[in-house]
Amino acid sequence: MKHLISMRDLSKNDILHFIETAELIEKGKMKPNLKGKLAALLFFEPSTRTRFSFESAMKRLGGETLTMSGTGTTSAKKGESFADTIKTISQYADILVIRSVLEGASRYASEIVSIPVVNAGDGANQHPTQALLDLYSIVKTQGTLENITIAIIGDLKFGRTVHSLVYGLSYFSPRFYFISPLHLSLPEHIKNELHSKNIIFEEGREIDNLVNKLDIMYVTRIQKERFADPEEYEKLKGSYQITSNILNNVKGNFKILHPLPRVNEITTEVDNTPYAYYFEQAKNGLYMRQSIISMLLLT
Amino acid sequence: MKHLISMRDLSKNDILHFIETAELIEKGKMKPNLKGKLAALLFFEPSTRTRFSFESAMKRLGGETLTMSGTGTTSAKKGESFADTIKTISQYADILVIRSVLEGASRYASEIVSIPVVNAGDGANQHPTQALLDLYSIVKTQGTLENITIAIIGDLKFGRTVHSLVYGLSYFSPRFYFISPLHLSLPEHIKNELHSKNIIFEEGREIDNLVNKLDIMYVTRIQKERFADPEEYEKLKGSYQITSNILNNVKGNFKILHPLPRVNEITTEVDNTPYAYYFEQAKNGLYMRQSIISMLLLT
Amino acid sequence: MKHLISMRDLSKNDILHFIETAELIEKGKMKPNLKGKLAALLFFEPSTRTRFSFESAMKRLGGETLTMSGTGTTSAKKGESFADTIKTISQYADILVIRSVLEGASRYASEIVSIPVVNAGDGANQHPTQALLDLYSIVKTQGTLENITIAIIGDLKFGRTVHSLVYGLSYFSPRFYFISPLHLSLPEHIKNELHSKNIIFEEGREIDNLVNKLDIMYVTRIQKERFADPEEYEKLKGSYQITSNILNNVKGNFKILHPLPRVNEITTEVDNTPYAYYFEQAKNGLYMRQSIISMLLLT
Repeated sequence: MKHLISMRDLSKNDILHFIETAELIEKGKMKPNLKGKLAALLFFEPSTRTRFSFESAMKRLGGETLTMSGTGTTSAKKGESFADTIKTISQYADILVIRSVLEGASRYASEIVSIPVVNAGDGANQHPTQALLDLYSIVKTQGTLENITIAIIGDLKFGRTVHSLVYGLSYFSPRFYFISPLHLSLPEHIKNELHSKNIIFEEGREIDNLVNKLDIMYVTRIQKERFADPEEYEKLKGSYQITSNILNNVKGNFKILHPLPRVNEITTEVDNTPYAYYFEQAKNGLYMRQSIISMLLLT
Repeated sequence: MKHLISMRDLSKNDILHFIETAELIEKGKMKPNLKGKLAALLFFEPSTRTRFSFESAMKRLGGETLTMSGTGTTSAKKGESFADTIKTISQYADILVIRSVLEGASRYASEIVSIPVVNAGDGANQHPTQALLDLYSIVKTQGTLENITIAIIGDLKFGRTVHSLVYGLSYFSPRFYFISPLHLSLPEHIKNELHSKNIIFEEGREIDNLVNKLDIMYVTRIQKERFADPEEYEKLKGSYQITSNILNNVKGNFKILHPLPRVNEITTEVDNTPYAYYFEQAKNGLYMRQSIISMLLLT
Repeated sequence: MKHLISMRDLSKNDILHFIETAELIEKGKMKPNLKGKLAALLFFEPSTRTRFSFESAMKRLGGETLTMSGTGTTSAKKGESFADTIKTISQYADILVIRSVLEGASRYASEIVSIPVVNAGDGANQHPTQALLDLYSIVKTQGTLENITIAIIGDLKFGRTVHSLVYGLSYFSPRFYFISPLHLSLPEHIKNELHSKNIIFEEGREIDNLVNKLDIMYVTRIQKERFADPEEYEKLKGSYQITSNILNNVKGNFKILHPLPRVNEITTEVDNTPYAYYFEQAKNGLYMRQSIISMLLLT
């Protein structure tokens, strides 16, 4: 594997290999040496969190970064094409990490440069490094990826982390509950694919009656601005807000994941329950990104 | 000591220990090794100078930095709370350095994360690393911190560097002259504290008749926009502008300090006198921040 | 040599020495060690490309950088003078790299600080590191700098890369063709200097009849906004657009250079011809900047 662009490109073995490497790195049993290596982090769409996670991953392995955050400082203002920007910057680095609002930006970049490309989020399309750290978080909390019962809640239409996670989990016989407002439900093409793989899933509008069946509850932001009618948002909001009240009879292995940032879809009192795992999940991102970068750079 | 949030938290011995360590580092007698350590510099309020000083301190000791400058690139835009931002980013680093317009931001951060936090300025409240480098500059130029006669000039009401410096010097039997326009004078609560410690101070409006008594003149910016009446500003400005004219009969050990940036409160001809110490003072910041970071990270 | 401010300061031997060092570095025969060295990159005028090139050069030799991009984060907003900013930041680093819209900014900086200063572009004046990498690209493609026949095309009036390149090549008996719209032609003072050095040059408005005589075609952006009349721009544009059509009978050693970013003055189909050298040229910038920084820092 040369690039990491989409979960669709990964075999089951690829995923397991990334996870095993992350685990070895976290436990200190493996310490890839990236001394002398440079990652160019091109964040056309700014993100402090994901950028810091990649920077930390590189630097903790002895590597270095070149960082662009936002479009304000690029040659795009002078009329340069995305292709020219990417080709030029690829001269200065050993690996490119790209976040863009444009779907397919990383794929296109991978086709025109000679160094590895990592997709750190492209529009509403894919966010494979997030999906891999989510899977790593599931393994760490459940002991396995197989036969997980998981509810995915929030904006399932535009949420790129959701799309990538669904693809990734599909290898491991999951049972999905997709909970969202009607007009933010999972795209048809993804549902068709799940059908063709004989993966069991249900769609719903509310979480309450489900919680006690779950191994994992994966919560994402519901973006207010995606509702045509603000009143509808206010009416629905409660259906998707996780409070400690609804966690009374959950399973012992139950955990709540969230890709962060959170707004108010999980109340802060939940943070103090043993079910909250989202900050540890963020930390897992560090090990997973060390795994990804070192596998692409060193093998 | 785990964090550095306020000068109020430091004992006299703490201050002396920071200063001794800075001195050993400057003289090359001590070289803390920060290889493999990461400092996250979270500058919600941008500052090139202070940021560079911390970055240089980390990198010259072999460490590395993650840098956020300005709020434009944070998850705050997506509605994330300060607490969530801090908790998440603390997963990626070994120490947090925080500058914020909000008073108490660093204190709050120190209460919710498990790594050391350094306050690099919080609103009009405190700026302890600046105060420590100021104290180091006084030691270097006067040979001692004890019994210093010092005038502090400018905006004493909102100036966080002033508040931190006054607290710090209070351990060392100073004689203070506080020179400012009436409505920018030192807050009552600080004056009350000085009274309770039996520290001698005088307040005044003009500097001319004082200069020859001083060991240290500490000058800060008078911010034009803090005057309700622009004419009043123009009228008063001269009272607070240091020119070489007024330095004719100063003491031999006399030095002028300024936390920088300067606007026009010290004229540039003063830079060429032997009394100007503000650029050396900036350099002392490098050694003091190396002292602070290494003491928090390594002990 | 302590600073690199203008091509006018360099002797023929200086230029050759920079080129030889770049060549040794590229071939791996020389590896300057910049461990422990810090470059402050002060890009008052933002530029991702040039900034990354310098950052990569420092980091690939083991050094580190402090980076400011844009004026939004500087103390200039608080009213600080350029001189104070430069003097303060020079306390934190071993070398300053400055890009500014103000002509003479780097020269002035070099006069007030005690560490080396590199001009990374000052307004419409000079861009010596670009000129040196251009010369290195000419050597690599032509085997020599002597007696080159070169057309320089585009905005010759305001193009700082052009001014620096013309000065640099003047030592090596070039034959120049200067191709531009009338009101964007080469400044008189540069033409006078070429006359005084007995250097042969012609000025023209069109490229077509020239192409087959050339060793090097150096293309720069024509900026639309520099035309008073948009219709005139549309009319002229074609005269300065390089397409593969006009490259049918070029010399075997012919190469096209461009400092990038490109807009539409070279069509992308040209990229696939053996004559396109501009992306390799960008990579040469890495070696040349390693050469420049290490020569200024280590000798």
